[in-house]
Amino acid sequence: MRFGVLGTGIVGETLATALIGLGHEVCMGTRSLPNERSQNWAGANGDTAHAGTFAECAAFGDLVLNCTAGVHSLAVLDQAGPAALSGKVLVDVANPLDFSEGFPPRMAVPPDDSLAEQIQRMLPDSYVVKALNTVAASVMVAPGSLEEPTDLFIAGDDKDAKAQVTELLGELGWSRDRVRDLGGLSAARATEGYLMLWLAMLQSLGSPDFNVRVVTTGGST
Amino acid sequence: MRFGVLGTGIVGETLATALIGLGHEVCMGTRSLPNERSQNWAGANGDTAHAGTFAECAAFGDLVLNCTAGVHSLAVLDQAGPAALSGKVLVDVANPLDFSEGFPPRMAVPPDDSLAEQIQRMLPDSYVVKALNTVAASVMVAPGSLEEPTDLFIAGDDKDAKAQVTELLGELGWSRDRVRDLGGLSAARATEGYLMLWLAMLQSLGSPDFNVRVVTTGGST
Repeated sequence: MRFGVLGTGIVGETLATALIGLGHEVCMGTRSLPNERSQNWAGANGDTAHAGTFAECAAFGDLVLNCTAGVHSLAVLDQAGPAALSGKVLVDVANPLDFSEGFPPRMAVPPDDSLAEQIQRMLPDSYVVKALNTVAASVMVAPGSLEEPTDLFIAGDDKDAKAQVTELLGELGWSRDRVRDLGGLSAARATEGYLMLWLAMLQSLGSPDFNVRVVTTGGST
Repeated sequence: MRFGVLGTGIVGETLATALIGLGHEVCMGTRSLPNERSQNWAGANGDTAHAGTFAECAAFGDLVLNCTAGVHSLAVLDQAGPAALSGKVLVDVANPLDFSEGFPPRMAVPPDDSLAEQIQRMLPDSYVVKALNTVAASVMVAPGSLEEPTDLFIAGDDKDAKAQVTELLGELGWSRDRVRDLGGLSAARATEGYLMLWLAMLQSLGSPDFNVRVVTTGGST
């Protein structure tokens, strides 16, 4: 399968490399070329790894992952072009955190909105699924590195798109029964807002290699 | 020990009843008397259970728990009187959720603030500790009802106050190693913000009887 990965940060690079390892073809997108990071990555990852512009990689992917910093995502997707993303599933991995005033960051969206919904409004012909934004890159691609199975939250308005993303998550190691579908895309407000607690735990634990496991009275379901 | 419990909702009643069961003396506070809920509760819970006004119960308690609805908490604590709470530990169990426009609610505090910090600014001579606000009342007093040990987050600016609250949580069944101190009271922004995810999980699971367990690479710590 062909993936467009927008962004060259630790999240984009980690996911792109994992997808190559799974046998997929990946285009890592940046604002412009030449770009040292994306071209070094493509050079190091074989024939199925490509570097391109946001627009090129959006057009390339059957499925596209937004791995840019949340405060820049709308500008990036505007550059990628709604036409290139039309009819496709867009996995929004980003978090709308504004670090411009230091730590802790502020949420860069109003409380009755989310980045994922902003993206969906900008790309009405795409299928936006919020996923993977509640764990560090290291955990995204290796949930088994944690001592126990943990949970991943997804949200989106299209059932088929969520099924396709759940499939992809399965390839990354997330078993179907730990992928918790929170419903429509507005639930992205909840998972984006969770980042403040994630950051507080990061500070408390001293490592990003953690996640939560939902426990009920009927056992961990 | 003497406790003031402010609020007669499910949270206040559940905590007050649990504290009576642990052998403590409890004053359940309301805006005014007579109050059917608090007086019925006191009548049903023996000699150590009392009903009083917010001010009376704040004065009564060695430790006071704010179990009022978050949008009313500042008004309640103003009524209770800063003098009655001076020098005392105040456990803020409330969440600043505004349900006036329906579900999902909106956060009723700006992103760079929390209800707990607002309370601390209003009561500078009290020791505010944010705790218990991330689980349903049923779980607060019976963490062992869940299938596995789960985590409780606390935040506060005073170490001794947090130690005292951790002691109380231990009486309620929360083992010390599952009480995660997130640091200063500003971390309450994180645990209050988590409520949006908690509510999304409530909808998804169909029951409030759940909590999260933090899992790391080194085992659940």
